[in-house]
Amino acid sequence: MRIARAALETPTWVGWDAAWRPIEDPYAAFASGRAPRFVGEALDHPHLLAPCEPLVIAGIAQNGPDASSPVQAWLKSPRSVVASGTTVALRRDAGIQVAEAEIAVVIGAHAVAVPVADAPGVVLGVTAVNDLSSPDRAAHDPRNFESKGGAGFTPLGPWIETEPDLERLPYALTIDGEVVAETDAGALPVGIAECIAYASQWVPLGPGDVIMCGAPFTNAEVLPGQTVEVRVGAMSLITPTR
Amino acid sequence: MRIARAALETPTWVGWDAAWRPIEDPYAAFASGRAPRFVGEALDHPHLLAPCEPLVIAGIAQNGPDASSPVQAWLKSPRSVVASGTTVALRRDAGIQVAEAEIAVVIGAHAVAVPVADAPGVVLGVTAVNDLSSPDRAAHDPRNFESKGGAGFTPLGPWIETEPDLERLPYALTIDGEVVAETDAGALPVGIAECIAYASQWVPLGPGDVIMCGAPFTNAEVLPGQTVEVRVGAMSLITPTR
Repeated sequence: MRIARAALETPTWVGWDAAWRPIEDPYAAFASGRAPRFVGEALDHPHLLAPCEPLVIAGIAQNGPDASSPVQAWLKSPRSVVASGTTVALRRDAGIQVAEAEIAVVIGAHAVAVPVADAPGVVLGVTAVNDLSSPDRAAHDPRNFESKGGAGFTPLGPWIETEPDLERLPYALTIDGEVVAETDAGALPVGIAECIAYASQWVPLGPGDVIMCGAPFTNAEVLPGQTVEVRVGAMSLITPTR
Repeated sequence: MRIARAALETPTWVGWDAAWRPIEDPYAAFASGRAPRFVGEALDHPHLLAPCEPLVIAGIAQNGPDASSPVQAWLKSPRSVVASGTTVALRRDAGIQVAEAEIAVVIGAHAVAVPVADAPGVVLGVTAVNDLSSPDRAAHDPRNFESKGGAGFTPLGPWIETEPDLERLPYALTIDGEVVAETDAGALPVGIAECIAYASQWVPLGPGDVIMCGAPFTNAEVLPGQTVEVRVGAMSLITPTR
Protein backbone atom coordinates (compact mmCIF):
# COMPACT_ATOMS: atom_id res chain seq x y z
CA MET A 1 0.00 0.00 0.00
CA ARG A 2 1.09 3.58 -0.62
CA ILE A 3 0.81 5.90 2.40
CA ALA A 4 1.39 9.66 2.29
CA ARG A 5 0.52 12.88 4.10
CA ALA A 6 -1.62 15.42 2.29
CA ALA A 7 -1.61 19.18 2.91
CA LEU A 8 -5.31 19.66 3.56
CA GLU A 9 -6.64 22.00 6.27
CA THR A 10 -4.41 20.02 8.60
CA PRO A 11 -1.85 17.42 7.51
CA THR A 12 -3.90 14.31 6.72
CA TRP A 13 -2.87 10.68 6.25
CA VAL A 14 -3.83 9.35 2.84
CA GLY A 15 -3.55 6.01 1.07
CA TRP A 16 -3.59 5.19 -2.63
CA ASP A 17 -6.62 3.49 -4.13
CA ALA A 18 -6.79 4.70 -7.76
CA ALA A 19 -6.67 8.15 -6.09
CA TRP A 20 -5.41 9.46 -2.75
CA ARG A 21 -8.03 8.91 -0.04
CA PRO A 22 -7.87 9.72 3.69
CA ILE A 23 -6.87 6.80 5.90
CA GLU A 24 -6.71 6.19 9.63
CA ASP A 25 -3.43 6.63 11.57
CA PRO A 26 -1.10 4.14 9.90
CA TYR A 27 0.95 3.58 13.08
CA ALA A 28 -2.14 2.51 15.02
CA ALA A 29 -3.09 0.14 12.21
CA PHE A 30 0.50 -1.15 12.10
CA ALA A 31 0.35 -1.85 15.84
CA SER A 32 -2.77 -3.91 15.17
CA GLY A 33 -1.05 -5.84 12.40
CA ARG A 34 -3.22 -4.66 9.52
CA ALA A 35 -3.25 -2.14 6.69
CA PRO A 36 -4.80 1.25 7.50
CA ARG A 37 -8.50 1.58 6.65
CA PHE A 38 -9.77 4.16 4.19
CA VAL A 39 -11.90 6.73 6.04
CA GLY A 40 -12.80 9.28 3.34
CA GLU A 41 -13.47 9.93 -0.31
CA ALA A 42 -10.98 10.36 -3.14
CA LEU A 43 -9.10 13.67 -3.12
CA ASP A 44 -8.41 15.70 -6.24
CA HIS A 45 -4.61 15.74 -6.60
CA PRO A 46 -3.73 16.82 -3.05
CA HIS A 47 -0.34 18.38 -2.39
CA LEU A 48 1.79 15.81 -0.62
CA LEU A 49 3.95 16.67 2.40
CA ALA A 50 6.96 14.65 3.48
CA PRO A 51 5.39 11.26 4.32
CA CYS A 52 6.43 11.13 7.98
CA GLU A 53 7.68 13.33 10.82
CA PRO A 54 10.75 11.64 12.28
CA LEU A 55 12.29 12.53 15.60
CA VAL A 56 15.29 10.37 14.75
CA ILE A 57 16.89 10.31 11.31
CA ALA A 58 19.79 7.88 11.44
CA GLY A 59 22.23 7.87 8.56
CA ILE A 60 24.27 4.74 7.97
CA ALA A 61 27.95 5.39 7.29
CA GLN A 62 30.74 3.09 6.21
CA ASN A 63 28.26 1.05 4.19
CA GLY A 64 30.47 0.94 1.13
CA PRO A 65 32.51 -1.69 -0.71
CA ASP A 66 35.74 -0.09 0.49
CA ALA A 67 34.60 0.73 4.04
CA SER A 68 37.61 0.57 6.33
CA SER A 69 35.62 -0.29 9.43
CA PRO A 70 32.29 -1.88 10.42
CA VAL A 71 29.08 0.01 9.80
CA GLN A 72 28.58 3.23 11.77
CA ALA A 73 25.82 5.81 12.01
CA TRP A 74 25.07 9.44 12.76
CA LEU A 75 21.99 11.63 13.26
CA LYS A 76 20.52 14.16 10.82
CA SER A 77 18.32 17.06 11.88
CA PRO A 78 14.55 16.41 11.70
CA ARG A 79 14.20 20.09 10.75
CA SER A 80 16.00 19.39 7.46
CA VAL A 81 13.13 17.29 6.04
CA VAL A 82 11.23 18.67 3.04
CA ALA A 83 8.71 17.18 0.61
CA SER A 84 9.24 16.13 -2.98
CA GLY A 85 9.06 19.19 -5.22
CA THR A 86 10.51 21.59 -2.67
CA THR A 87 13.27 23.77 -4.08
CA VAL A 88 16.39 23.56 -1.92
CA ALA A 89 18.99 26.33 -1.68
CA LEU A 90 22.36 24.64 -1.93
CA ARG A 91 25.02 26.11 0.35
CA ARG A 92 27.40 28.54 -1.34
CA ASP A 93 29.67 28.67 1.73
CA ALA A 94 30.46 25.00 2.20
CA GLY A 95 32.32 23.60 -0.80
CA ILE A 96 30.86 21.14 -3.27
CA GLN A 97 27.29 19.94 -2.78
CA VAL A 98 26.50 16.27 -3.19
CA ALA A 99 23.19 14.48 -3.70
CA GLU A 100 22.97 10.97 -2.28
CA ALA A 101 20.15 8.69 -3.39
CA GLU A 102 19.21 6.34 -0.59
CA ILE A 103 16.49 4.00 0.56
CA ALA A 104 14.80 5.43 3.66
CA VAL A 105 13.24 2.91 6.03
CA VAL A 106 10.26 4.32 7.95
CA ILE A 107 9.89 2.70 11.36
CA GLY A 108 6.35 1.74 12.38
CA ALA A 109 6.65 0.93 16.09
CA HIS A 110 8.91 1.38 19.09
CA ALA A 111 12.08 -0.49 18.25
CA VAL A 112 14.90 -1.13 20.70
CA ALA A 113 17.75 -3.58 20.01
CA VAL A 114 15.81 -5.40 17.29
CA PRO A 115 17.49 -8.62 16.10
CA VAL A 116 18.20 -8.80 12.36
CA ALA A 117 15.60 -11.51 11.86
CA ASP A 118 12.91 -9.34 13.48
CA ALA A 119 13.85 -6.11 11.70
CA PRO A 120 11.24 -6.41 8.90
CA GLY A 121 8.59 -6.51 11.65
CA VAL A 122 9.26 -2.91 12.75
CA VAL A 123 9.21 -1.46 9.22
CA LEU A 124 6.12 0.50 8.22
CA GLY A 125 7.59 0.85 4.75
CA VAL A 126 10.24 2.49 2.63
CA THR A 127 10.47 5.81 0.87
CA ALA A 128 13.12 7.72 -1.07
CA VAL A 129 15.56 10.15 0.51
CA ASN A 130 18.12 12.56 -0.89
CA ASP A 131 20.82 12.86 1.76
CA LEU A 132 22.20 16.23 0.62
CA SER A 133 25.70 16.81 1.93
CA SER A 134 28.64 19.20 1.93
CA PRO A 135 31.52 16.70 2.03
CA ASP A 136 34.24 19.36 1.92
CA ARG A 137 33.33 20.19 5.54
CA ALA A 138 34.28 16.69 6.70
CA ALA A 139 37.87 17.57 7.60
CA HIS A 140 36.63 20.00 10.23
CA ASP A 141 33.36 18.21 10.97
CA PRO A 142 33.91 14.56 11.93
CA ARG A 143 30.38 14.25 13.37
CA ASN A 144 28.47 15.32 10.20
CA PHE A 145 26.95 18.40 11.87
CA GLU A 146 28.04 21.07 9.40
CA SER A 147 27.92 18.85 6.34
CA LYS A 148 24.39 17.46 6.62
CA GLY A 149 22.06 19.67 8.68
CA GLY A 150 21.27 22.55 6.36
CA ALA A 151 17.75 23.83 5.58
CA GLY A 152 16.03 21.46 3.19
CA PHE A 153 18.94 19.02 3.16
CA THR A 154 16.69 15.95 3.60
CA PRO A 155 14.12 15.71 0.79
CA LEU A 156 11.93 12.72 1.67
CA GLY A 157 9.05 11.00 -0.11
CA PRO A 158 6.80 11.22 -1.95
CA TRP A 159 5.07 8.31 -0.21
CA ILE A 160 5.74 5.25 1.95
CA GLU A 161 5.54 1.90 0.16
CA THR A 162 4.49 -0.73 2.69
CA GLU A 163 5.51 -4.40 2.66
CA PRO A 164 8.72 -3.74 0.73
CA ASP A 165 11.21 -6.43 -0.22
CA LEU A 166 14.16 -5.20 1.83
CA GLU A 167 16.60 -7.35 -0.11
CA ARG A 168 15.58 -6.49 -3.64
CA LEU A 169 14.65 -2.87 -4.30
CA PRO A 170 16.13 -0.89 -7.19
CA TYR A 171 17.11 2.73 -6.65
CA ALA A 172 18.77 5.37 -8.74
CA LEU A 173 20.00 8.95 -8.87
CA THR A 174 19.26 11.23 -11.78
CA ILE A 175 20.44 14.81 -12.29
CA ASP A 176 18.58 16.94 -14.82
CA GLY A 177 16.88 13.82 -16.09
CA GLU A 178 20.07 11.87 -16.71
CA VAL A 179 20.64 8.67 -14.73
CA VAL A 180 24.03 9.06 -13.06
CA ALA A 181 23.90 6.03 -10.78
CA GLU A 182 21.67 3.03 -10.25
CA THR A 183 21.83 0.07 -7.94
CA ASP A 184 19.71 -2.19 -5.77
CA ALA A 185 19.23 -2.82 -2.06
CA GLY A 186 20.76 -6.23 -2.65
CA ALA A 187 24.08 -4.58 -3.49
CA LEU A 188 24.39 -2.82 -0.11
CA PRO A 189 27.39 -4.31 1.71
CA VAL A 190 25.37 -4.18 4.93
CA GLY A 191 21.73 -5.03 4.20
CA ILE A 192 18.71 -3.03 5.31
CA ALA A 193 17.71 -5.44 8.09
CA GLU A 194 21.24 -5.26 9.50
CA CYS A 195 21.12 -1.44 9.37
CA ILE A 196 17.89 -1.44 11.40
CA ALA A 197 19.35 -3.89 13.93
CA TYR A 198 22.51 -1.81 14.29
CA ALA A 199 20.74 1.55 14.70
CA SER A 200 18.15 0.25 17.16
CA GLN A 201 20.87 -1.33 19.29
CA TRP A 202 22.22 2.11 20.17
CA VAL A 203 19.36 4.59 19.68
CA PRO A 204 15.76 3.72 20.56
CA LEU A 205 13.54 4.23 17.50
CA GLY A 206 9.85 5.01 17.27
CA PRO A 207 7.00 5.50 14.81
CA GLY A 208 7.95 7.80 11.96
CA ASP A 209 11.69 7.57 12.51
CA VAL A 210 13.86 7.13 9.44
CA ILE A 211 16.98 5.12 8.71
CA MET A 212 18.89 6.22 5.63
CA CYS A 213 20.64 3.06 4.51
CA GLY A 214 23.67 4.60 2.83
CA ALA A 215 24.69 5.62 -0.67
CA PRO A 216 27.79 3.63 -1.54
CA PHE A 217 26.96 3.59 -5.22
CA THR A 218 24.56 6.48 -5.71
CA ASN A 219 26.00 9.92 -5.05
CA ALA A 220 27.10 12.76 -7.30
CA GLU A 221 27.90 16.44 -7.18
CA VAL A 222 24.95 18.73 -7.83
CA LEU A 223 25.18 22.33 -9.01
CA PRO A 224 22.72 25.10 -8.13
CA GLY A 225 19.89 25.11 -10.63
CA GLN A 226 20.03 21.40 -11.33
CA THR A 227 17.12 19.12 -10.48
CA VAL A 228 17.84 15.94 -8.56
CA GLU A 229 15.62 12.88 -8.73
CA VAL A 230 15.91 9.92 -6.40
CA ARG A 231 14.05 6.85 -7.64
CA VAL A 232 13.26 4.03 -5.24
CA GLY A 233 11.10 1.32 -6.78
CA ALA A 234 8.17 3.17 -8.38
CA MET A 235 8.75 6.32 -6.33
CA SER A 236 10.27 9.49 -7.72
CA LEU A 237 11.54 12.15 -5.29
CA ILE A 238 12.16 15.42 -7.07
CA THR A 239 14.40 18.20 -5.70
CA PRO A 240 14.91 21.32 -7.76
CA THR A 241 17.88 23.32 -6.46
CA ARG A 242 19.01 26.90 -6.57
CA MET B 1 10.73 33.59 35.23
CA ARG B 2 10.66 29.83 35.69
CA ILE B 3 8.85 27.86 32.96
CA ALA B 4 8.14 24.13 33.11
CA ARG B 5 5.80 21.46 31.74
CA ALA B 6 3.48 19.71 34.16
CA ALA B 7 2.05 16.22 33.74
CA LEU B 8 -1.65 17.03 34.08
CA GLU B 9 -4.34 15.41 31.95
CA THR B 10 -2.27 16.62 29.02
CA PRO B 11 1.21 18.15 29.26
CA THR B 12 0.62 21.73 30.42
CA TRP B 13 2.91 24.77 30.42
CA VAL B 14 3.35 26.21 33.90
CA GLY B 15 5.21 29.17 35.38
CA TRP B 16 6.41 29.79 38.92
CA ASP B 17 4.62 32.37 41.06
CA ALA B 18 5.01 31.11 44.66
CA ALA B 19 3.52 27.89 43.20
CA TRP B 20 3.37 26.38 39.71
CA ARG B 21 0.48 27.91 37.75
CA PRO B 22 -0.64 27.27 34.15
CA ILE B 23 0.67 29.77 31.62
CA GLU B 24 0.06 30.47 27.95
CA ASP B 25 2.38 29.03 25.26
CA PRO B 26 5.77 30.51 26.12
CA TYR B 27 6.97 30.48 22.51
CA ALA B 28 4.02 32.62 21.39
CA ALA B 29 4.72 35.04 24.26
CA PHE B 30 8.43 35.04 23.35
CA ALA B 31 7.54 35.92 19.76
CA SER B 32 5.58 38.88 21.12
CA GLY B 33 8.52 39.99 23.25
CA ARG B 34 6.90 39.48 26.64
CA ALA B 35 6.77 36.99 29.50
CA PRO B 36 3.99 34.37 29.29
CA ARG B 37 0.77 35.27 31.08
CA PHE B 38 -0.63 33.14 33.89
CA VAL B 39 -3.89 31.54 32.79
CA GLY B 40 -4.85 29.32 35.75
CA GLU B 41 -4.73 28.79 39.48
CA ALA B 42 -1.90 27.40 41.59
CA LEU B 43 -1.31 23.64 41.24
CA ASP B 44 -0.54 21.37 44.17
CA HIS B 45 2.98 20.05 43.50
CA PRO B 46 2.48 18.89 39.91
CA HIS B 47 4.84 16.31 38.48
CA LEU B 48 7.18 18.08 36.08
CA LEU B 49 8.06 16.68 32.67
CA ALA B 50 11.18 17.62 30.74
CA PRO B 51 10.69 21.36 30.16
CA CYS B 52 10.73 21.31 26.36
CA GLU B 53 10.39 18.94 23.40
CA PRO B 54 13.35 19.55 21.11
CA LEU B 55 13.59 18.36 17.55
CA VAL B 56 17.25 19.33 17.50
CA ILE B 57 19.62 18.69 20.39
CA ALA B 58 23.03 20.02 19.41
CA GLY B 59 25.97 19.07 21.56
CA ILE B 60 29.03 21.31 21.45
CA ALA B 61 32.31 19.42 21.19
CA GLN B 62 35.90 20.59 21.40
CA ASN B 63 34.87 23.27 23.90
CA GLY B 64 37.70 22.49 26.29
CA PRO B 65 40.90 24.18 27.42
CA ASP B 66 42.98 21.65 25.50
CA ALA B 67 40.75 21.43 22.42
CA SER B 68 42.93 20.64 19.44
CA SER B 69 40.63 22.28 16.90
CA PRO B 70 37.89 24.93 16.71
CA VAL B 71 34.49 24.23 18.23
CA GLN B 72 32.45 21.46 16.61
CA ALA B 73 29.02 19.97 17.20
CA TRP B 74 26.93 16.84 16.85
CA LEU B 75 23.29 15.83 17.25
CA LYS B 76 21.74 13.83 20.11
CA SER B 77 18.48 11.88 19.78
CA PRO B 78 15.33 13.76 20.91
CA ARG B 79 14.03 10.39 22.10
CA SER B 80 16.76 10.27 24.76
CA VAL B 81 15.23 13.16 26.79
CA VAL B 82 13.82 12.37 30.24
CA ALA B 83 12.68 14.51 33.17
CA SER B 84 14.44 15.16 36.44
CA GLY B 85 13.84 12.24 38.79
CA THR B 86 13.68 9.61 36.07
CA THR B 87 15.82 6.56 36.82
CA VAL B 88 18.14 5.79 33.93
CA ALA B 89 19.50 2.32 33.15
CA LEU B 90 23.19 2.77 32.42
CA ARG B 91 24.51 0.59 29.61
CA ARG B 92 26.30 -2.57 30.75
CA ASP B 93 27.50 -3.32 27.20
CA ALA B 94 29.33 -0.11 26.36
CA GLY B 95 32.27 0.47 28.70
CA ILE B 96 32.42 3.17 31.33
CA GLN B 97 29.47 5.50 31.73
CA VAL B 98 30.09 9.20 32.18
CA ALA B 99 27.82 11.98 33.44
CA GLU B 100 28.43 15.41 31.95
CA ALA B 101 26.93 18.46 33.66
CA GLU B 102 26.14 21.11 31.08
CA ILE B 103 24.16 24.28 30.58
CA ALA B 104 21.34 23.66 28.09
CA VAL B 105 20.17 26.64 26.09
CA VAL B 106 16.49 26.43 25.08
CA ILE B 107 15.82 28.22 21.80
CA GLY B 108 12.68 30.38 21.69
CA ALA B 109 12.25 31.20 18.01
CA HIS B 110 13.36 30.15 14.55
CA ALA B 111 17.08 30.81 14.45
CA VAL B 112 19.22 30.57 11.32
CA ALA B 113 22.80 31.89 11.13
CA VAL B 114 22.37 34.11 14.17
CA PRO B 115 25.29 36.53 14.74
CA VAL B 116 26.97 36.27 18.16
CA ALA B 117 25.66 39.68 19.19
CA ASP B 118 22.08 38.63 18.43
CA ALA B 119 22.29 35.19 20.05
CA PRO B 120 20.76 36.20 23.40
CA GLY B 121 17.69 37.34 21.45
CA VAL B 122 16.79 33.79 20.37
CA VAL B 123 17.17 32.27 23.86
CA LEU B 124 13.97 31.41 25.71
CA GLY B 125 16.08 30.44 28.70
CA VAL B 126 18.47 27.90 30.13
CA THR B 127 18.04 24.63 31.92
CA ALA B 128 20.28 21.85 33.20
CA VAL B 129 21.28 18.82 31.16
CA ASN B 130 23.13 15.62 31.96
CA ASP B 131 24.80 14.53 28.72
CA LEU B 132 25.21 10.86 29.61
CA SER B 133 27.85 9.19 27.47
CA SER B 134 29.70 5.95 26.81
CA PRO B 135 33.12 7.35 25.84
CA ASP B 136 34.72 3.93 25.37
CA ARG B 137 32.67 3.62 22.17
CA ALA B 138 34.42 6.63 20.63
CA ALA B 139 37.13 4.63 18.87
CA HIS B 140 34.48 2.89 16.76
CA ASP B 141 31.96 5.72 16.83
CA PRO B 142 33.42 9.00 15.60
CA ARG B 143 29.96 10.54 15.10
CA ASN B 144 28.70 10.03 18.69
CA PHE B 145 25.85 7.73 17.62
CA GLU B 146 26.58 4.73 19.84
CA SER B 147 28.01 6.73 22.73
CA LYS B 148 25.22 9.23 23.30
CA GLY B 149 21.84 8.04 22.05
CA GLY B 150 20.74 5.50 24.64
CA ALA B 151 17.33 5.43 26.33
CA GLY B 152 17.20 8.14 29.00
CA PHE B 153 20.66 9.44 28.13
CA THR B 154 19.54 13.10 28.14
CA PRO B 155 18.03 14.07 31.52
CA LEU B 156 16.82 17.67 31.09
CA GLY B 157 15.26 20.19 33.49
CA PRO B 158 13.62 20.65 35.84
CA TRP B 159 12.58 24.04 34.49
CA ILE B 160 13.66 26.79 32.08
CA GLU B 161 15.05 29.92 33.70
CA THR B 162 14.34 32.87 31.41
CA GLU B 163 16.50 35.96 31.00
CA PRO B 164 19.69 34.19 32.05
CA ASP B 165 23.09 35.85 32.21
CA LEU B 166 24.83 33.79 29.53
CA GLU B 167 28.27 34.91 30.68
CA ARG B 168 27.96 34.26 34.38
CA LEU B 169 26.09 31.15 35.43
CA PRO B 170 27.49 28.66 37.93
CA TYR B 171 27.03 24.96 37.32
CA ALA B 172 28.19 21.81 39.02
CA LEU B 173 28.13 18.02 38.99
CA THR B 174 27.45 16.00 42.11
CA ILE B 175 27.44 12.22 42.45
CA ASP B 176 25.70 10.71 45.46
CA GLY B 177 25.54 14.18 46.99
CA GLU B 178 29.25 14.92 46.68
CA VAL B 179 30.34 17.82 44.47
CA VAL B 180 32.82 16.38 42.01
CA ALA B 181 33.14 19.39 39.68
CA GLU B 182 31.99 22.98 39.63
CA THR B 183 32.54 25.82 37.23
CA ASP B 184 30.81 28.77 35.58
CA ALA B 185 29.61 29.68 32.07
CA GLY B 186 32.30 32.35 32.11
CA ALA B 187 34.96 29.63 32.13
CA LEU B 188 33.77 28.02 28.88
CA PRO B 189 36.52 28.48 26.26
CA VAL B 190 33.82 29.20 23.68
CA GLY B 191 31.00 31.19 25.29
CA ILE B 192 27.31 30.37 25.09
CA ALA B 193 26.49 33.09 22.55
CA GLU B 194 29.27 31.81 20.30
CA CYS B 195 27.90 28.26 20.63
CA ILE B 196 24.46 29.43 19.50
CA ALA B 197 25.92 31.34 16.56
CA TYR B 198 28.00 28.34 15.52
CA ALA B 199 25.17 25.80 15.73
CA SER B 200 22.62 28.01 13.97
CA GLN B 201 25.07 28.68 11.14
CA TRP B 202 24.89 25.04 10.10
CA VAL B 203 21.59 23.63 11.42
CA PRO B 204 18.39 25.70 11.46
CA LEU B 205 17.01 25.83 15.01
CA GLY B 206 13.47 26.35 16.23
CA PRO B 207 11.35 26.72 19.37
CA GLY B 208 12.20 24.12 21.98
CA ASP B 209 15.51 23.09 20.46
CA VAL B 210 18.41 22.64 22.85
CA ILE B 211 22.11 23.43 22.64
CA MET B 212 24.27 21.62 25.18
CA CYS B 213 27.20 23.96 25.65
CA GLY B 214 29.88 21.43 26.56
CA ALA B 215 31.35 19.97 29.73
CA PRO B 216 35.06 20.74 29.65
CA PHE B 217 35.28 20.90 33.44
CA THR B 218 32.26 18.94 34.64
CA ASN B 219 32.24 15.26 33.80
CA ALA B 220 32.88 12.13 35.81
CA GLU B 221 32.33 8.39 35.66
CA VAL B 222 29.05 7.20 37.16
CA LEU B 223 28.35 3.69 38.41
CA PRO B 224 24.97 1.94 38.33
CA GLY B 225 23.06 2.79 41.48
CA GLN B 226 24.61 6.19 41.95
CA THR B 227 22.52 9.36 41.78
CA VAL B 228 23.74 12.18 39.58
CA GLU B 229 22.80 15.82 40.17
CA VAL B 230 23.46 18.61 37.71
CA ARG B 231 23.13 22.07 39.24
CA VAL B 232 22.74 25.10 37.00
CA GLY B 233 22.11 28.31 38.93
CA ALA B 234 19.25 27.48 41.32
CA MET B 235 18.17 24.40 39.33
CA SER B 236 18.84 20.85 40.42
CA LEU B 237 18.45 18.03 37.88
CA ILE B 238 18.39 14.65 39.60
CA THR B 239 19.13 11.36 37.82
CA PRO B 240 19.07 8.13 39.82
CA THR B 241 20.75 5.34 37.88
CA ARG B 242 20.60 1.59 37.89
